[in-house]
Amino acid sequence: MSITTPKGFVAAGLAAGIKASGALDLALLATEDGIAVPTAATFTSNLAAAAPVQISRAHMAANGGRASAVLVSSGNANAATGDRGRADATLMCAQTAAELGVPADQVLVCSTGLIGIPLPMEPITDGIPRLVAARAGGPDAGADAAQGILTTDSGRKEVLVTYPDFTVAGMAKGAGMLAPNMATMLAFLTTDAAVEPGPLADILRSAVADSFNSMSVDGCTSTNDTVILMASGKAGPCDPTLVADAVTEACADLARQMAEDAEGSSTVFQVQVTGARTDGEAHVAARKVADSLLVKCSINGEDPYWGRVASELGSAGVDFDMDRLTIAYGGTTVCRGGIEVPYDKAAVAAHMAGPMVMIECGLGLAAGTGVVMGVELGYGYIDENRTTS
Amino acid sequence: MSITTPKGFVAAGLAAGIKASGALDLALLATEDGIAVPTAATFTSNLAAAAPVQISRAHMAANGGRASAVLVSSGNANAATGDRGRADATLMCAQTAAELGVPADQVLVCSTGLIGIPLPMEPITDGIPRLVAARAGGPDAGADAAQGILTTDSGRKEVLVTYPDFTVAGMAKGAGMLAPNMATMLAFLTTDAAVEPGPLADILRSAVADSFNSMSVDGCTSTNDTVILMASGKAGPCDPTLVADAVTEACADLARQMAEDAEGSSTVFQVQVTGARTDGEAHVAARKVADSLLVKCSINGEDPYWGRVASELGSAGVDFDMDRLTIAYGGTTVCRGGIEVPYDKAAVAAHMAGPMVMIECGLGLAAGTGVVMGVELGYGYIDENRTTS
Repeated sequence: MSITTPKGFVAAGLAAGIKASGALDLALLATEDGIAVPTAATFTSNLAAAAPVQISRAHMAANGGRASAVLVSSGNANAATGDRGRADATLMCAQTAAELGVPADQVLVCSTGLIGIPLPMEPITDGIPRLVAARAGGPDAGADAAQGILTTDSGRKEVLVTYPDFTVAGMAKGAGMLAPNMATMLAFLTTDAAVEPGPLADILRSAVADSFNSMSVDGCTSTNDTVILMASGKAGPCDPTLVADAVTEACADLARQMAEDAEGSSTVFQVQVTGARTDGEAHVAARKVADSLLVKCSINGEDPYWGRVASELGSAGVDFDMDRLTIAYGGTTVCRGGIEVPYDKAAVAAHMAGPMVMIECGLGLAAGTGVVMGVELGYGYIDENRTTS
Repeated sequence: MSITTPKGFVAAGLAAGIKASGALDLALLATEDGIAVPTAATFTSNLAAAAPVQISRAHMAANGGRASAVLVSSGNANAATGDRGRADATLMCAQTAAELGVPADQVLVCSTGLIGIPLPMEPITDGIPRLVAARAGGPDAGADAAQGILTTDSGRKEVLVTYPDFTVAGMAKGAGMLAPNMATMLAFLTTDAAVEPGPLADILRSAVADSFNSMSVDGCTSTNDTVILMASGKAGPCDPTLVADAVTEACADLARQMAEDAEGSSTVFQVQVTGARTDGEAHVAARKVADSLLVKCSINGEDPYWGRVASELGSAGVDFDMDRLTIAYGGTTVCRGGIEVPYDKAAVAAHMAGPMVMIECGLGLAAGTGVVMGVELGYGYIDENRTTS
């Protein structure tokens, strides 16, 4: 399985020489026949958006929601690179488009890696013709593309969701800066279902909200985050509700793979808030807990220090009544009515020693619910992030 | 020098037995003659406020801004303890008031330590009569009080600001959860200046905003934060502007002592934002940078990775134009117009190896300025916070 499993897509990946390690660092996803197909994209909310985000956003605004290809480079984010960065991103699209024989605004571009350093353009302009020439269907080409978009990831992240009438496939890159509003993460999805640009954009927006935007590694929002969904239509018209379900399932699976691969981290935890005034308030409260350094440290230490969870909920800026609070770890209630209750300490200890810790918080106010995934804070995160060298 | 240096105050501290270590854990600050004096207090914004915060807040609302004494216990926060916690805090005030012969609502109470565990009341009720009996002026009693309020602090935090006509003294406890809106920190200030309750509250509010609320260790807001300022009036009426200056200076000094003593941390950094649309936006942007895990890791690694600073500014939710951005470390500009410029790498490396790193961010939009202090993220923080045992 790969990004090329849905009918109508080809891909490629190669080592152009951006990364000193010699690892794959250039990837292409394109339609098989060069025809522009309905395409949806969501971009980072960061106002310091990288050059490729600026250029891709402009292309999406100009191409009527139809694109032919996506070029991805890894190892350098082309962020905080000013006019030169914009010129480089524009050139990458133009050259790819020329090689494919399509208009430049039908090509989108994404980059990921270090911030603040101009792209090394020579390997990229040398690599693009070879990359385009290498494009192919089949699992090998898809695997090369999925490999070529990675940075600090420990391995490829791919997903395939199969329905009777159509398929959805995806590949993603992301570890470390994952956070509110999708920090340094890239995800690409393909489907052979026929969906028009408008509904396709709605499907992607909703899927991203329920997946990538409901996870947090360190609360940082990157300059380069992008999710792109292309629909070839080769499988013909399909029930849009089923397509939405499949895309959401694919995004959730990729998001989980990213959380499990968060830089230097192993234990993932999920904060579920129920009983909030609204779903929005539940989400805000769950994110406050998931982002908390102290809670992350407790997860690292396998310590069910629920008082810190209560403290974060109380300072989340949402409606809160300590006397109605219930907190459970993995289904074992440790706090009820805002105070500790006797509980099975062995059961909680066993749960916290596992790979996925569940923190369930009941606010007891109304019916709002929200879930956010977080990652523990341990030495590994610091080792990974203290220097860029 | 101590909290009793301003005329009209006595203090005491002793080991009641709350802490298993046998360290001092009960402290008293009181007026020399038992008379209630103008007193101002600010409390945590956390809706999971601890029992002593709830009771002290109620007493301040009832006593017309005049109090006779403050009782402080350390080792257990009496937070997330429900009705029992409120009864315990009420009893602590009532017993202290009875020993001093003053109304109960003229006594305030503060606790600090672990959350979620009921207070051990026997040592406290045994200790209060001894504590009240031991109250005295002079530096030894003040030092005992300053010692008795500590938890994970590495030592006492005290300050004295002397003006020709009056003095302001302070003592504080805080390390670790320091954050927006004053996380687990307690500070107590005394002055012999004569200031009425209303102006005294204004003076304290402003001083806290410019000191304790402009620092961040980990972005967590505690359940127990309290700052109390008592004015004995023994020095007679003084220029309120000078009193405000002195209180602000004392608070800023205590805040600096806390930042330098942040749990498991050594390098403190200061984020200065200029050129923002407003002072408020500058403060928000500076806090976003100071709270960033990635920036904190970079400080730990002595890495001037300004791209992360730019990324945080861009996602701070304030007006921002990457093309106008300037970033400097310790006065050496590394980024201008949103891109890296050649700079003296040796000078920046030397600055980042020092005990206080200055990050200066110019947004180039208007005249708004703001400063927030942060603390690096290293192994020490994790060691300190991963378990409570």
